[in-house]
Amino acid sequence: MSTRQLKLGALTMGVGGPGRHNLWLDPELPADASVNIDWYIDIARQAEAALFDLIFIVDSQFITPGSPPHYLNRLEPLTLLSALAVSTRHIGLVGTLTTSYNEPFNVARRLASLDLISKGRAGWNVVTSGDAGTAGNYGRDEHYDYDTRYGRAREHVQVVQGLWQSWEDDAFVRDRASGRYFDPAKLHALNHKGEHFSVVGPLNLQRSPQGQPVIFQAGDSEQGRELGAAIADVVFTHAPSLEQGQAFYREIKERALRQGRDPEQVLVLPGAEVFVGDSDEQARELERHYHAADHSFEQALLEFGRSFGWHDFSQYELDAPFPAQALEFARSSFFTVAKRITDRAVSEGLSLRQAVQASRQLRPGAFVGSAETVAAKMSEWFEARAVDGFNIYIGHPGQFRRFTEEVVPLLQERGVYRREYPGSTLRENLGLRIPRNLR
Amino acid sequence: MSTRQLKLGALTMGVGGPGRHNLWLDPELPADASVNIDWYIDIARQAEAALFDLIFIVDSQFITPGSPPHYLNRLEPLTLLSALAVSTRHIGLVGTLTTSYNEPFNVARRLASLDLISKGRAGWNVVTSGDAGTAGNYGRDEHYDYDTRYGRAREHVQVVQGLWQSWEDDAFVRDRASGRYFDPAKLHALNHKGEHFSVVGPLNLQRSPQGQPVIFQAGDSEQGRELGAAIADVVFTHAPSLEQGQAFYREIKERALRQGRDPEQVLVLPGAEVFVGDSDEQARELERHYHAADHSFEQALLEFGRSFGWHDFSQYELDAPFPAQALEFARSSFFTVAKRITDRAVSEGLSLRQAVQASRQLRPGAFVGSAETVAAKMSEWFEARAVDGFNIYIGHPGQFRRFTEEVVPLLQERGVYRREYPGSTLRENLGLRIPRNLR
Ligand SMILES: Cc1cc2nc3c(=O)[nH]c(=O)nc-3n(C[C@H](O)[C@H](O)[C@H](O)COP(=O)(O)O)c2cc1C
Ligand SMILES: Cc1cc2nc3c(=O)[nH]c(=O)nc-3n(C[C@H](O)[C@H](O)[C@H](O)COP(=O)(O)O)c2cc1C
Repeated sequence: MSTRQLKLGALTMGVGGPGRHNLWLDPELPADASVNIDWYIDIARQAEAALFDLIFIVDSQFITPGSPPHYLNRLEPLTLLSALAVSTRHIGLVGTLTTSYNEPFNVARRLASLDLISKGRAGWNVVTSGDAGTAGNYGRDEHYDYDTRYGRAREHVQVVQGLWQSWEDDAFVRDRASGRYFDPAKLHALNHKGEHFSVVGPLNLQRSPQGQPVIFQAGDSEQGRELGAAIADVVFTHAPSLEQGQAFYREIKERALRQGRDPEQVLVLPGAEVFVGDSDEQARELERHYHAADHSFEQALLEFGRSFGWHDFSQYELDAPFPAQALEFARSSFFTVAKRITDRAVSEGLSLRQAVQASRQLRPGAFVGSAETVAAKMSEWFEARAVDGFNIYIGHPGQFRRFTEEVVPLLQERGVYRREYPGSTLRENLGLRIPRNLR
Repeated sequence: MSTRQLKLGALTMGVGGPGRHNLWLDPELPADASVNIDWYIDIARQAEAALFDLIFIVDSQFITPGSPPHYLNRLEPLTLLSALAVSTRHIGLVGTLTTSYNEPFNVARRLASLDLISKGRAGWNVVTSGDAGTAGNYGRDEHYDYDTRYGRAREHVQVVQGLWQSWEDDAFVRDRASGRYFDPAKLHALNHKGEHFSVVGPLNLQRSPQGQPVIFQAGDSEQGRELGAAIADVVFTHAPSLEQGQAFYREIKERALRQGRDPEQVLVLPGAEVFVGDSDEQARELERHYHAADHSFEQALLEFGRSFGWHDFSQYELDAPFPAQALEFARSSFFTVAKRITDRAVSEGLSLRQAVQASRQLRPGAFVGSAETVAAKMSEWFEARAVDGFNIYIGHPGQFRRFTEEVVPLLQERGVYRREYPGSTLRENLGLRIPRNLR
């Protein structure tokens, strides 16, 4: 067995209504899955039984009538994860919280609380929010521009991590014999005064068994990658192919090294869609079948606008050349994705209709085949250092069961995946060091 | 059995270290109770077994070396309550969130999530924060003055309740046969633009089985009482005597009536400290015994400063007349309490030492005696309409057990307390109507 081990996350996607695959039509999925705590608990326990490292909750604080169904009606990530914390024992609990519309003091407290409640299993997916309309829910006319978003993100994380060091590890003595409860000398204010935040501290929470929650990061621009290399324990991304995965993997580790970090302590975890069948052919059949249930082209066109700040593409001729000027509307939104789509459309001379079709096929890395094929392909990506593991998209319950019951044992046989949890905290399971308390 | 029934809440206090009663020395209490989720679950289940309406979590986001020990190291209320939601089935879950340092969109989402996770058992204790130093943790040099604090609070609650009406009750059809998931016409933006907040909405969460979380309010100034009468389903307060309780009770109901509300739909729930003994004499003994374990005068002097914005009273002569000029330091802090203390000290000619001693004895309403005596006194207060129920302070585990095992059955025999939960939501149990969705 190699010492380096594949990491697995479970990411619930699109369970809240019509849209991709029209998942909600699957009779095995509760129709109200996106707000159904019993379903989440069930998924978390299934993932835990398969020794997954973590369950990963994405987020958005903005909806329009055109929003992806996943976001129309869903539980706030940390509220959800706290309920999962006491319903599981080993699995990590990673929640997305935006640095653009949350106070660092509140973020620090909520995550530290989850970390204590879960006995050291909390993680924070740091994002800056791509939906420009989010601003309107927080008293702002416009979303922050990229430099401000990422400047805030960097400083935000710094403040939060500073607050997590308010109490030294041995500050709470709690010795009844001597009557000594804590050592006031081991409580430290932060006194942070920066460009975006000023926070006095200290935080009113002790450290957890893993020291601090694990930091994840998702955001793919130059600024996003630099942020990830600087602060992330784990970078969440998409890897369309093994080669692109390898390139991104190398890049993140090099960036981390340049920032003076140990590259082995920065993991890369792309999302992965999996279709397991009895044979490769049957799996492809299944995939086609599910895609046939996809939403209409009109709906796809609407959602296509999301990366461009919910720009209305129905105003353009579908079969004329792609309207490249629309990229301007993506400036404070998902610019990285929008630029990739636009560049491709222009260089390949696609029409709007073709660009929309192409982006529907754009998958975050799909593993389609028999359990043997999927396990072999995942191992290959892992051994080739295209990934340190995968965030598996949970959609169809039957598919997730096939993954945990059929693919996982094969990964174990191949020696790339654990047979038991190596530790009791998320950090231990991911092979990450406990950050020292610097005070 | 009278139809009007006594309400009971469980409020954990001072379990996080030295201070009043030095509770942590009680060998029955885990030394780390304030951050120990297993202890909280245990308490919640005990309270639920005794048919309590709710568990109530107070809060503060500010500590200094002089902070009450209760706040030095404690879980964030809603993160805690979400873990309790899936560990209990009937009991209400009420968390304190300040309107001064939280975005209404985030508050609306987190409480709506808790409400769905608990299947309709969430409550929000609306406060404006009395610790002026909190401002420093949120990028402000000074805490808001009273008018701003309460102006924000009023508008904040209005926005949150508006967001809770984003989706009509029957918006989610989820009919697999027709392929109809939801009705877009039943999703409503808020478009709030006010003095303190502007929030576009809509919220990405459906309504819960109780429609909306129950609103509690705590804050005792003229502005605080007016806010409570305007927006609260339940007012949390202190009642030093039956007569003072009656006066406050009448006042709140009258204020509610003047604001056009049904006074029966605004409950008054003061905190209550309980000491149960085998006899009245033994209970008084017990009380003296616990008080003997109280912290030192020096510590009491420090904590006395809290209401006055953590003003340092050690600079004054202890036996000279009370330094009434200190009241100025309470302006943006707990002014109502500080003024009450100052007025009394001046009118009774107390020294600083006497004022501190008097405030140590100031109790939120203590019920001391045999189980029979306590049950009789509580019933008397309830029948005399001094209260609609009590928020029982949980401290010594043995005392809480005596309350639930000995006092509760007597309250039941007297016909003032339920023998089973009347409903499945907090609103039903409290006898509160489900707010109609106004869209
Ligand atoms: C793989 C991945 C997952 C993401 N997940 C979220 C999310 O759950 N919530 C969110 O607000 N933003 C999410 N983001 C968006 C980023 O936070 C970012 O705001 C957006 O992608 C635009 O920035 P960028 O150009 O740096 O990617 C995600 C981004 C990536 C690449
Ligand atoms: C019974 C009671 C309980 C309170 N609980 C809290 C609390 O848990 N957290 C908090 O920040 N403020 C709490 N407050 C404080 C109020 O929010 C308010 O800021 C403070 O009391 C000063 O305002 P006032 O003069 O209107 O009372 C409480 C007040 C009362 C009367």
